[in-house]
Amino acid sequence: MNLHHGSHRQIVLVARPDGLPVPSNFAIRRAPVPTPSEGEVLVRTLYLSIDAGLRGRLSDAFNYAASVPLGGVVRSLGIGEVLESRHEGFLPGQLLVTETGWQEYAAVVPGITTRVIDTATAPAMAFLGVLGISGITAHIGMIDLARVGPGETAVVSTAAGAVGSIAGQLAKAAGARTVGITGSAEKVQLCLDDYGYDACINYRATSDLSSALAEVCPEGIDVYFDNVAADQLDAALASLAIGGRVVICGTMGIPPGVVPTGPRFERVLLARRASIQGFIWGDHHHRNEEIVASLTERYRAGGLRYREHVVHGLERAPEAFAELLTGQNLGKTIVSVGRPAGSSNRSGITS
Amino acid sequence: MNLHHGSHRQIVLVARPDGLPVPSNFAIRRAPVPTPSEGEVLVRTLYLSIDAGLRGRLSDAFNYAASVPLGGVVRSLGIGEVLESRHEGFLPGQLLVTETGWQEYAAVVPGITTRVIDTATAPAMAFLGVLGISGITAHIGMIDLARVGPGETAVVSTAAGAVGSIAGQLAKAAGARTVGITGSAEKVQLCLDDYGYDACINYRATSDLSSALAEVCPEGIDVYFDNVAADQLDAALASLAIGGRVVICGTMGIPPGVVPTGPRFERVLLARRASIQGFIWGDHHHRNEEIVASLTERYRAGGLRYREHVVHGLERAPEAFAELLTGQNLGKTIVSVGRPAGSSNRSGITS
Repeated sequence: MNLHHGSHRQIVLVARPDGLPVPSNFAIRRAPVPTPSEGEVLVRTLYLSIDAGLRGRLSDAFNYAASVPLGGVVRSLGIGEVLESRHEGFLPGQLLVTETGWQEYAAVVPGITTRVIDTATAPAMAFLGVLGISGITAHIGMIDLARVGPGETAVVSTAAGAVGSIAGQLAKAAGARTVGITGSAEKVQLCLDDYGYDACINYRATSDLSSALAEVCPEGIDVYFDNVAADQLDAALASLAIGGRVVICGTMGIPPGVVPTGPRFERVLLARRASIQGFIWGDHHHRNEEIVASLTERYRAGGLRYREHVVHGLERAPEAFAELLTGQNLGKTIVSVGRPAGSSNRSGITS
Repeated sequence: MNLHHGSHRQIVLVARPDGLPVPSNFAIRRAPVPTPSEGEVLVRTLYLSIDAGLRGRLSDAFNYAASVPLGGVVRSLGIGEVLESRHEGFLPGQLLVTETGWQEYAAVVPGITTRVIDTATAPAMAFLGVLGISGITAHIGMIDLARVGPGETAVVSTAAGAVGSIAGQLAKAAGARTVGITGSAEKVQLCLDDYGYDACINYRATSDLSSALAEVCPEGIDVYFDNVAADQLDAALASLAIGGRVVICGTMGIPPGVVPTGPRFERVLLARRASIQGFIWGDHHHRNEEIVASLTERYRAGGLRYREHVVHGLERAPEAFAELLTGQNLGKTIVSVGRPAGSSNRSGITS
């Protein structure tokens, strides 16, 4: 039976964003702390992973994931502490990465995204970033799909972001020359100093991204890891090498539900025998264990740098999300919702 | 030394086409029959393969193949009879598929496209079509790259064409449901009756190709083998299934050197985790032997239907090419240039 009476806070979607999300799209409501059913686990949310992919879920346009219904709790990956388990695979006290949603408590049915984490390996938040959805996504796109190789040139958009920064480092480790595209001088510096990019372009300070990319990629772009689409993709295609591979991880440059026009790709793809492939991490969960093991090894050897942009308070999740979409974050955006009960001395949980 | 004195006819490019090619883009000139140098083979041209890909070579826009220079002989794959060999791998009397160009004689350096053919296996012209560039191209795109599988839906544009008709049959043989897009009622009938398509759409008689495709592909399109690009690609993308693969074999719907605008693909590719890949057969010559063996086996078992559209006379090559680009052919377009010397009884050479 549920030992955790009382109510908790949830953030629900009350209006679909028209363009970028604004505070009035969301509302806070109180609801009873749920009672887990057989097969469920009651968790208390500690951290929320704020990801650009949420934008599509707030829209009712066709997408790879179901839309959040109006009045529904915003869906989100997070880290929760198990308070009560009615699932034989989980025990109270464990920390899980799971689909918590934007709420303080959640009764979750453990699914393919649910993993028990061990904070002896890394601080909990790392399991939402470098050792979680961000790192896994970067690995799937850059290594599994684009198969970047030694001597190749790999370009990454949102190069300083949670996914991009890992994609760049993985390409570098694979022997590629790496070029970042990012949106501020500070991020350019971070890319060069921390993430090991060989070159980095501030697209906001460049009137002609296509020429800027051509200049720093004189032998063409073998791999383009795209989180932006639209103009940044066009610029990359203009310098694509023969046999180039573009992986589309995100489309931040295109609002949901809008189909802008742009120059047609077909001739470039044919003449350069190139490919463009969209992917989402959710299709590759069978790869998670092996990828996380590889990322963890690299992380423990000091070979993966990352930043976290931590925003405190559930009520600030919408704001954190809006900041992410406008590039005001610097690294993985995480909302800190609460601390594990009776574990104030657990190392590595605070940032 | 060259035993074949005298002059021969060549067709040269005198002006780059502005839009579709017209007769005045070409001229016939006489030139001395060449003397083969060491390592070369002198062939007399029997047949020319007329392929849509030539369009790009007549343009000076960026392409996968070098442009034909103004004043240069039009490049073309063809079948020639060896008259004189200064290459140890070839003997007089052999029939070769090779880069003859649009001319009556050619001194060729045997390259990766050069193959000796055996007319005991099939009529010579088949080695330019079903057992040659057309069949190999169809196999690379549909089988090697798109990896069509049982129960899938495969759509083919230029479905009755030299490449498309084979692509459709290979997909059908792989267990897929096949849907063709073609440009006349006669071709629709050919697709249904001869090439085994489960459904076929005459795009010229359809005001809304996108809806027409959606109707005949209720479970979505798993593979789209594209020879057209532009509007036909857009229509296919609108019904693309999750995990759909588009292979771009040709872009007949886009004139060389022009970059039209169209709806952006990125959201479709991401939401459907789909890919678009351009390819040319020339990158896959290492696969030729195995693919031709597979096609030959299928052909001899009666499992590959094809048509040839034979135009007689070198001087009619430009006309045959223009007919191909406007869809007036019905099957593989071949220009018959001459007969093998002393072999009027060779079976299977005439169509």
